[in-house]
Amino acid sequence: MRAATIRDGRIEVVEHPDPEPQDGQLLVRVHAAGLNGADLLQVAGHYPPPPGAPADIPGLELAGEVVSCGRRVGRFEPGDRVMGIVAGGGQAELAVIHERTAMPVPEELDWTAAGGVPEVFTTAHDALFTQAGLAVGERLLVHGAAGGVGMAAVQLGVMTGARVTATVRNEQCRTQVAALGVQAIDPEGFADYGPFDVILELVGAQNLTGNLEALATGGRIVVIGVGAGAVSDIDLRMLMHKRAVLRGSTLRSRPIEEKAITARLMEKMVLPGFASGDLIVPVAASYPLDEAPAAYDRFKAGKKLGKVVLEI
Amino acid sequence: MRAATIRDGRIEVVEHPDPEPQDGQLLVRVHAAGLNGADLLQVAGHYPPPPGAPADIPGLELAGEVVSCGRRVGRFEPGDRVMGIVAGGGQAELAVIHERTAMPVPEELDWTAAGGVPEVFTTAHDALFTQAGLAVGERLLVHGAAGGVGMAAVQLGVMTGARVTATVRNEQCRTQVAALGVQAIDPEGFADYGPFDVILELVGAQNLTGNLEALATGGRIVVIGVGAGAVSDIDLRMLMHKRAVLRGSTLRSRPIEEKAITARLMEKMVLPGFASGDLIVPVAASYPLDEAPAAYDRFKAGKKLGKVVLEI
Repeated sequence: MRAATIRDGRIEVVEHPDPEPQDGQLLVRVHAAGLNGADLLQVAGHYPPPPGAPADIPGLELAGEVVSCGRRVGRFEPGDRVMGIVAGGGQAELAVIHERTAMPVPEELDWTAAGGVPEVFTTAHDALFTQAGLAVGERLLVHGAAGGVGMAAVQLGVMTGARVTATVRNEQCRTQVAALGVQAIDPEGFADYGPFDVILELVGAQNLTGNLEALATGGRIVVIGVGAGAVSDIDLRMLMHKRAVLRGSTLRSRPIEEKAITARLMEKMVLPGFASGDLIVPVAASYPLDEAPAAYDRFKAGKKLGKVVLEI
Repeated sequence: MRAATIRDGRIEVVEHPDPEPQDGQLLVRVHAAGLNGADLLQVAGHYPPPPGAPADIPGLELAGEVVSCGRRVGRFEPGDRVMGIVAGGGQAELAVIHERTAMPVPEELDWTAAGGVPEVFTTAHDALFTQAGLAVGERLLVHGAAGGVGMAAVQLGVMTGARVTATVRNEQCRTQVAALGVQAIDPEGFADYGPFDVILELVGAQNLTGNLEALATGGRIVVIGVGAGAVSDIDLRMLMHKRAVLRGSTLRSRPIEEKAITARLMEKMVLPGFASGDLIVPVAASYPLDEAPAAYDRFKAGKKLGKVVLEI
């Protein structure tokens, strides 16, 4: 099989041996696989994949058709349309995924859209609900809302009946985010728009002091992206005064038991939103597998709305 | 009535009009009232009491006998032994407390001990269980364990079946804390003793980086005291990597509904520990009301094990 492959800090598309499904795993003919920030880090050598994941094939999510099943598989059979998060290796013609972390692809989604769903919607759902306990009527601020996770979070917030504010640096993207029915603002001076019950941080530590200022009493800040900077001052007296929660989270390093739980929550709480039309998958650009290097360049360039997806 | 009173940044004992119980309140003849760090801040002008609390009489907890009841009181009657947290005014011959925040005094406790229970045990219980979700078998680190809240937290941790480590600066106090059946260590180099699932911070921000280093994956840090310093650097990437929770909390500023819930939890989960002998109230020193200034000096001097209590 052919796969996007990390060679000397760059992406090439080369031939690999076909993977074989182990107990509980599905072998999937991949039709689409989204790019994520962690892929860039891995290409640059900063984010080694966890044990068991292919060392040189990036890709944290996939959508495709089940080709064959390992032993002790009960949930799916060959021919089923599945999607899900994987610890690596998704950007290839063939990939394996444990059946507990796989989800059925809703009828309403084509392959390209499905390839961009698992990572960002699972990450956003986990952060907003499992981590931050976002509830109807609460005020949500999403920093960096034009990216994949941000667009998923904004939509999930609206679908939940939260009142959503979104910071978007790029002016054109800001207009498009506002079209989702939320208050889209420039990051500059965001703290004046509070108080917020939940703040989702996808940008960096430079927002931390403003986040604490803008937080309501009992508010929760969840940090899942710090690409623009990881270190900041923090005034713990303000944290106490607000009775605030500051929480960090990542999905990739979790054990399979926890990832399986996120997949069940996705099936129950998120996938129905694609059927009802409450949720869409914003795809900024898609590329065939052979143009994976161009896809990575596009992803790096930023100023995009939603996902970059490989069609395979 | 006479009361400890703040005059020009110092404590005097002077005459005040008797308070009158409003709807739902008990008028209590106070027999004992503990000192707390927030009293010192209030004396120094740094911690104004919330609206409704006496402006110049400190005291966040009391134990005493019900003298009379306001309208719509149903839980207590004159003659009952009660204790509880108040927003201020506890260090006086008479004080009012809402019946929903009052608890019965367990038979096993004398007045002096009872006067030192409400603030520290409510604070410690709320922080460890309601905020941090401490569970049996988890590893707990308590910073500043020789103080009132620290001693309460250490005992509640042991009673819960957690594995408890306690930092204590003063060597003599450290030996006494170790006698509670926990690992008592010097704060220097505490991070080497991890990983911990829950860390209770009662000292200051200088521990924050070490706390994050010493935290287990999925661990929770609860900050409820920062007397030694409130500001620190924080590396949010480490927070993400550990999937850590950093939470600040205070009790005093909460609305009465929330304080009432803490009192119900105390009745259910903490007071039985005094009957069973699992919990003791460490009283470092007690003073009659007239010697309140000396009690405040003793509290300020530190190097004490447990509470300083006024006997009234």
